[in-house]
Amino acid sequence: MRLWAFISAVYWVSFVTYFILWRSYKHVSNLRAAARSTSGVKPQEFAMLVRDVPIPPPDQTIKDSVDSYFRALHPDTFYKAMVVTDITKADKIFQEIEGHKRKIAHAEAVYAESKTANRSEGTRPTHKTGFLGLIGKKVDTIEYCNEQIKDFLPKLEDERKSALSEKQQRAAFVFFNSRAAAASASQTLHAQMFDEWTVAEAPEPREVIWANLPRKIYDRHTRQTVVYLIVFVTVAFYMIPITAISAVTTLEKLREKLPFLKVVVDQPFVKTVLQAYLPQIALIVFLAVLPTLLVSLSKSEGIPSQSHVVRAASGKYFYFIVFNVFIGYAIGSSLFSALEKVIKNPPGIFMTLATRLPGNATFFFTFVALRCFVGYGLELSRLVPLIIFHLKRKYQCKTEEEVRAAWVPGNLRYNTRVPNDMLIVTIVLCYSVITPLILPFGVAYFALGWLIAKNQVLRVYVPSYESNGRMWPHMHTRIIAALMIYQATMIGIISLKKFYYSTILAPLLVISLIFAHTCHARFYPAFAKTPLEVASQQLKETPNMSAIYTAYIPPCLKPDKLQDVQVFEDAQSRTTSRAPSF
Amino acid sequence: MRLWAFISAVYWVSFVTYFILWRSYKHVSNLRAAARSTSGVKPQEFAMLVRDVPIPPPDQTIKDSVDSYFRALHPDTFYKAMVVTDITKADKIFQEIEGHKRKIAHAEAVYAESKTANRSEGTRPTHKTGFLGLIGKKVDTIEYCNEQIKDFLPKLEDERKSALSEKQQRAAFVFFNSRAAAASASQTLHAQMFDEWTVAEAPEPREVIWANLPRKIYDRHTRQTVVYLIVFVTVAFYMIPITAISAVTTLEKLREKLPFLKVVVDQPFVKTVLQAYLPQIALIVFLAVLPTLLVSLSKSEGIPSQSHVVRAASGKYFYFIVFNVFIGYAIGSSLFSALEKVIKNPPGIFMTLATRLPGNATFFFTFVALRCFVGYGLELSRLVPLIIFHLKRKYQCKTEEEVRAAWVPGNLRYNTRVPNDMLIVTIVLCYSVITPLILPFGVAYFALGWLIAKNQVLRVYVPSYESNGRMWPHMHTRIIAALMIYQATMIGIISLKKFYYSTILAPLLVISLIFAHTCHARFYPAFAKTPLEVASQQLKETPNMSAIYTAYIPPCLKPDKLQDVQVFEDAQSRTTSRAPSF
Repeated sequence: MRLWAFISAVYWVSFVTYFILWRSYKHVSNLRAAARSTSGVKPQEFAMLVRDVPIPPPDQTIKDSVDSYFRALHPDTFYKAMVVTDITKADKIFQEIEGHKRKIAHAEAVYAESKTANRSEGTRPTHKTGFLGLIGKKVDTIEYCNEQIKDFLPKLEDERKSALSEKQQRAAFVFFNSRAAAASASQTLHAQMFDEWTVAEAPEPREVIWANLPRKIYDRHTRQTVVYLIVFVTVAFYMIPITAISAVTTLEKLREKLPFLKVVVDQPFVKTVLQAYLPQIALIVFLAVLPTLLVSLSKSEGIPSQSHVVRAASGKYFYFIVFNVFIGYAIGSSLFSALEKVIKNPPGIFMTLATRLPGNATFFFTFVALRCFVGYGLELSRLVPLIIFHLKRKYQCKTEEEVRAAWVPGNLRYNTRVPNDMLIVTIVLCYSVITPLILPFGVAYFALGWLIAKNQVLRVYVPSYESNGRMWPHMHTRIIAALMIYQATMIGIISLKKFYYSTILAPLLVISLIFAHTCHARFYPAFAKTPLEVASQQLKETPNMSAIYTAYIPPCLKPDKLQDVQVFEDAQSRTTSRAPSF
Repeated sequence: MRLWAFISAVYWVSFVTYFILWRSYKHVSNLRAAARSTSGVKPQEFAMLVRDVPIPPPDQTIKDSVDSYFRALHPDTFYKAMVVTDITKADKIFQEIEGHKRKIAHAEAVYAESKTANRSEGTRPTHKTGFLGLIGKKVDTIEYCNEQIKDFLPKLEDERKSALSEKQQRAAFVFFNSRAAAASASQTLHAQMFDEWTVAEAPEPREVIWANLPRKIYDRHTRQTVVYLIVFVTVAFYMIPITAISAVTTLEKLREKLPFLKVVVDQPFVKTVLQAYLPQIALIVFLAVLPTLLVSLSKSEGIPSQSHVVRAASGKYFYFIVFNVFIGYAIGSSLFSALEKVIKNPPGIFMTLATRLPGNATFFFTFVALRCFVGYGLELSRLVPLIIFHLKRKYQCKTEEEVRAAWVPGNLRYNTRVPNDMLIVTIVLCYSVITPLILPFGVAYFALGWLIAKNQVLRVYVPSYESNGRMWPHMHTRIIAALMIYQATMIGIISLKKFYYSTILAPLLVISLIFAHTCHARFYPAFAKTPLEVASQQLKETPNMSAIYTAYIPPCLKPDKLQDVQVFEDAQSRTTSRAPSF
């Protein structure tokens, strides 16, 4: 009797989850459409990203070949094209100049302060030109920086010119004079060979990763495969390097290499603690570094936009924490040692989970509760950022701008926030039927989370780009993955009790797959592409095409005055504008 | 030493195959582009197929809602829309009329013949109106048929009108005034929800399967899944129903049910033969019926065009013959009985293949040689069609038109020809290294095949539609599948000899997968979609838009005069043309 109640509960939980997921997907999809069709002019909706531009004939620049190609194919709607150039050097010089400008502002503030403090001439701030300001010649900061800027400005000008004409890369942004034309063009296959002229919707100018744009299609595929391999190895075998590191960095070795640590390390108390906890410390450091590592791995896949990188990193992190925190803790060993068993007997992992899960309920209760109260408390009070801000303001910030920079709350950090929430979903789902006491905790977590995250999003964080809900399909897939882990675990638990009942739950796995497929087929295309319905909506204002074009000029190449845009464009197609003069 | 030669031979064969496949794909792709960009006006290049049209508001017909939707989204390029209507009834009446017309022509020829033969009035041909002309009232054929046509014509007119206005289905063809516009539109996502307004490139008018067009997207997916399931079961377990049939239809039972067979069956010789061969006869009948069965299964998936159905059926047939003829014969049992072993130990099938393959060389030698000499002989002489034609001409055909219909050679029958050739590819590849004597046979088969098929295609068969080489990507995938079967078998053979060498061949499987993926990414999109490059080429003649529109009117609805096209179109959007009169 209890068994039947149990089975029907599993079905109930699954169907409620399906229902919620379906409604949310529809809701997010409608919100996305509404946000895109009514809002103002967005440069990315008039642009298309072109990659894998073929090498042009010797008498043409890439800009010319892009221009002529797209003008021929879109005679009525083509506006302009902007070729991506190699800006690494220009950007470096630009950053130097900006740094010097900031230094001058800082030094002037310090100088003014010293004047008021001493009621006298004050002391002109100085610094040393060598490494980290510690060694080298002592110079007057304001004078020195002004000179440096004077030196750098012509260099930047030269570099701008050479970047525009000689360092053209095989990628470009193409601009159209209507949103519908851009949407339609970016979904249309252009070239006969797929490894030439590949087109895609343009990312927002703010989130473009310039260095990734010129990567060739085969390069991208290879990088992706390699990154997936690395991530798989990291997820499965992350314990090996940590064990190895802690084995190598024993205290004796540390003392040999870094003799100045001797004073600390030789104290018996410190020694005991360090010897006992060195592996744990290595682990903590690894876990702290992991999200950043995953972001940079995802970036090196060749993805063109920041928001896409965050999505990719978030997916990788999800699998890491589900496999290692959830399944790893539940099985009571790292995935690495469990892997051998799994390879020998794949369905065995769910039997193991089924055996161990009920016993570990307390740990996960504490886990969810801790996340709920401590995590949200920290989040809401923003205690750590507050302390950092006050420290910075006291010891570092002198100018208004520096204070503002110290206060900036930044992005929402989707790449760790989403996977952590997904982990809670997985835990709550898996315990929902065996120990339903977890449900109030789960409800509290997400109810509080809704309130707090909404508040933080609206009043605290400043997003640096807007993807119009493109994170949702990604979360949707992970929630279904969590649901399927849950269903498989439940099948395992039933199998342990009475073997022949477990087949009653098996259809759920199939239903989940069909559900995932149906949702994907129905809703995902409108997230991956711009539907013509949405793009054809009338805009409230007439778009200023030259502003749209200017938005895509990287900051280090941006001309100081707007009328120079024409110069900027001419610089790219030097050959054609020169050609008549021969 | 021999082992190393063996391994390097496998690598050679694989790389030569890769090279040939890559070059052929490129070649076919270029041919396709050339054929599409230079040739004359083709109606399908100006049209787009729209399915899953949402239910319109009550005061609009579907035609009106399609018109207004696409006119809004493509204001400059939209030409006209034609809604698909339910023509089953109209088509039935139309076929009746056509049948009667044919009967009249036949009867008149018979009548004229009897006049010249008897040098008198002649006898007017008669027939009976009942079942198969065997029972019922005896009537004068010419008079009767003329009356029937007179009866049917107004019915057809009524049915035409009601089909156009009341039986509109939720699918339509949309026409554009340029090829580029049609190509671009058919690749662009139109609606926010993917299960509404799904668009695709239009198939050629001749090969449209009208009944499949209005199927909804979920219906299509469900049907596809069910069909795949049926095909899988057929491939894996086809022996079961055949054994069952032959068990049920023993001679004793046959005699009971069909007593008139007693005379034949009771003869001892016939009895022995029948008892021994009944299962084989069932098998032969099954194999003969299978291609037709697969075609009708593929058709019921909801595929909109004939050529796509043929491709789908050909893929299914390939897996059937490879698994059952090739692997089945080599293992020495049907796949069904091998399946149990395979599930217990998946890689075991290749070990079994490796053990059995060398021993079966003779059978496959004979198989290839037979196909080569007897198969091509029959193909070239077209002996069977010749006999059928002469029989028909002697006993059935009276009019010129009937003789022409009897002579028609029809299509190339890709759905059986391609899988059979792919089977030979599989056999030749698998034996290429273990018994290289098969290579001359293979070369002879395909060299002769090239000559003969080219001759037949150019001079004999009349294709009823043109897919511009869309069969090739399909064959390409199957050849790679064959190559991978070969590579896996070779790994098995090496494993049998010296276990630790087999890993040297393992990378080949990975290379094959990467190769397949690369080819697919590079070439396939230009087969699935029309590249804008190709669609933007200037046509030699200006397209006649009304002829393009008329081409898509199904024969049973086609107005007798061309000026009636306007009437045809008005009939579809009755509501709007009536609206002003209220």
